[in-house]
Amino acid sequence: MKTETFNQLDKVIHEKGRMAIMSILASSSEMSFRELKEMLGMTDGNLSVHIRTLQQAGYVVVSKTFVNNRPHTSYRLTKEGIRSFEDYINLLEEIVRLNRESD
Amino acid sequence: MKTETFNQLDKVIHEKGRMAIMSILASSSEMSFRELKEMLGMTDGNLSVHIRTLQQAGYVVVSKTFVNNRPHTSYRLTKEGIRSFEDYINLLEEIVRLNRESD
Repeated sequence: MKTETFNQLDKVIHEKGRMAIMSILASSSEMSFRELKEMLGMTDGNLSVHIRTLQQAGYVVVSKTFVNNRPHTSYRLTKEGIRSFEDYINLLEEIVRLNRESD
Repeated sequence: MKTETFNQLDKVIHEKGRMAIMSILASSSEMSFRELKEMLGMTDGNLSVHIRTLQQAGYVVVSKTFVNNRPHTSYRLTKEGIRSFEDYINLLEEIVRLNRESD
């Protein structure tokens, strides 16, 4: 059992809510606050806090545009976010594999 | 993307340090405090706190015996601990799969 594998898990992504946000954004080009909120069933407050953490880590960027003259805020992963999430998923895969081997 | 998969992740196990402890105990019949500490590179304080959390959840039991007249404390998973950890690993596998599919 290589315990350093666990230490390598990215704290920013490892929190369940942020893991879900990263997964959703990884599978779509961009997503509005409302869409994310509906998919995740989170409160505005929770979602805002998680997105801010992801922005501060440089994993998510926000773009503010106008659609039909109304402000439209959407989120997408940065290149660093994509790479960090891939690393994270690779580690999860490794952890699953380590635990299957020792069965 | 099924976001409820993320909500199902067991909070007790999801913390990185406890994930490592559960993995080690899942692959061995029992383990002493010192062995766990060496494998994990944790402080006594950190390891104690995590083990207490796992005991309180009913996932780990402690057994105190004497080896060569010296007290020997060891830890092992309960049946519930084994089952919960299997569920957790199955969920991780599902999360990896969901994210591979959407590539």
